[in-house]
Amino acid sequence: MRTSVEEVLITTGAQQALDLTGKLFLDEGDTVICESPTYTGAISALKVFAPRWVEVPTDDEGMDLEALERRLEYCDRVKLIYVVPNFQNPTGTTWSLERRRRFAEIVTQHSVAVVEDDTYGELRFEGLPLPPIKSFDSKGHIVYIGTFSKVLSPGMRIGWLTASSPLYEKYVILKQGSDLHTSTLCQMQISAYLEMFDFDKSLSRMRAVYRERRDAMIRALEKEMPKGVRFSRPSGGLFLWVELPPHMDARELLRRSLELDVAFVPGGSFFPKGNKENTLRLSYSHMPVERIEEGVRRLSAAARGMMSAGTEDARLSGVESAY
Amino acid sequence: MRTSVEEVLITTGAQQALDLTGKLFLDEGDTVICESPTYTGAISALKVFAPRWVEVPTDDEGMDLEALERRLEYCDRVKLIYVVPNFQNPTGTTWSLERRRRFAEIVTQHSVAVVEDDTYGELRFEGLPLPPIKSFDSKGHIVYIGTFSKVLSPGMRIGWLTASSPLYEKYVILKQGSDLHTSTLCQMQISAYLEMFDFDKSLSRMRAVYRERRDAMIRALEKEMPKGVRFSRPSGGLFLWVELPPHMDARELLRRSLELDVAFVPGGSFFPKGNKENTLRLSYSHMPVERIEEGVRRLSAAARGMMSAGTEDARLSGVESAY
Repeated sequence: MRTSVEEVLITTGAQQALDLTGKLFLDEGDTVICESPTYTGAISALKVFAPRWVEVPTDDEGMDLEALERRLEYCDRVKLIYVVPNFQNPTGTTWSLERRRRFAEIVTQHSVAVVEDDTYGELRFEGLPLPPIKSFDSKGHIVYIGTFSKVLSPGMRIGWLTASSPLYEKYVILKQGSDLHTSTLCQMQISAYLEMFDFDKSLSRMRAVYRERRDAMIRALEKEMPKGVRFSRPSGGLFLWVELPPHMDARELLRRSLELDVAFVPGGSFFPKGNKENTLRLSYSHMPVERIEEGVRRLSAAARGMMSAGTEDARLSGVESAY
Repeated sequence: MRTSVEEVLITTGAQQALDLTGKLFLDEGDTVICESPTYTGAISALKVFAPRWVEVPTDDEGMDLEALERRLEYCDRVKLIYVVPNFQNPTGTTWSLERRRRFAEIVTQHSVAVVEDDTYGELRFEGLPLPPIKSFDSKGHIVYIGTFSKVLSPGMRIGWLTASSPLYEKYVILKQGSDLHTSTLCQMQISAYLEMFDFDKSLSRMRAVYRERRDAMIRALEKEMPKGVRFSRPSGGLFLWVELPPHMDARELLRRSLELDVAFVPGGSFFPKGNKENTLRLSYSHMPVERIEEGVRRLSAAARGMMSAGTEDARLSGVESAY
């Protein structure tokens, strides 16, 4: 049962909600727990407060909760857990209902604050929407973040957070210090848009477009990518996560694919401690299907080129060491 | 001679430039030097970084530079000086040319970073504009802040900062972590406005309106205020500063004047350490002349009432002690 009163604060994009959260909860050396990998923008928002990062592995159903409990037991000064349970950036993973419910129990039991970043939740292509973790928050420990950036306009910078009143009051003071208020003009424009147009219809159109592009990207990856490359199959959102064989570095792959006019984000920056360089994030949101197909073809060619060069290197170094 | 290359970063109002400045320069326990009193929003922006505040007295020509030099000599960890040289909020004070030049010399000599907040500079009613302190910045130590909030629309949240490139690069990274970017829609709207309309003419009109209101407020204060009340005579901007006799508390005056439907900001919040409660800030920007006159009449009546109550209290306590 919900015991706390919830309030909503408009923020300058979801990103500012993360900044304010850092200001509210973190002192130097405090611990932040996050999924591994996690949203790189959350890392940049929070690292200015110099926390210690503790990553928790995730699988297809979300965070590994046994691993989480071990960390909560053994880590000092855990002040915040940051999670993206819907179509996570960068992996595309969506937490199962059971994982959400159990996670809420654990954080309530440990009295630790959580930021649930639901930037992508409206962009579900298939299956039924799952309740936010916030809906299981009986003690007001969870701060829920949303935004219009991915479903209307990132240029407007209109996001929001929902928090229990005692936290909300503190967020308001921090918000005033940070930028006084979020553009009232943009707020009025969004409000007018929602009154004048059918937002749900626009969402449906958007979902259809993105679904088609996701399908195209998955098909192309299945067809083109060399053996040993694995990738996620998100049921919504904007991103898809690729794991190369362990010895391959996505930064080198980027260098090669840029020569073919194909760009992506190497995965290393999604790990607070910057390991796992054999990963990358692909985005299917922006390009039409044909260009996605062509892009994946080129990217796969670059990956194959790198693999055979690797074999060549291994052979050469074998030759060298034979001398 | 300027030796550094300067860059401009658009910020979510001037307020965000202060927030980013705190993030860039301040660790807990670092010293911030400011005018006494200073902009209360700068106090809220920076206090989240837990600095130590050191105030420097000001007179009609700006900061007392001998006092500044003593503080620079004796204070540890001075990381930042915050100043508002044009029509300061809250006092309305404008620094003289000589004070600006000498200040720039001192901060260059001490290699200390400065934020020059020029939120009100365009609102000059009389006399010639003075060069910003930034124009004497030979080493790239000074960050200059401007905004459209006071001359076009606070609701748009479009401000900017100018900094030498090494600082600028760091500001960009901090800006991305804070809110990714400032509303591009608002930026485009302001850009279109500047192309389509005569902004200088709009500024002239604004200055004329505010000048008339300032004149009305000064006339009314001269006529109505009881003896012992002093006030500033700003040559621009939005604010005027009032000093009551030392024993009077502006918070009590506010309580009394609110009963007469007159509001103002008590001065205590403009001092980082919250002293000098016998001061208040009046704003003449919003109300038409007749309401300014009526407002000052009521405020003065409240002040007179408080003074005679004070005398009465003194008389009574005199009587009491005679028993």
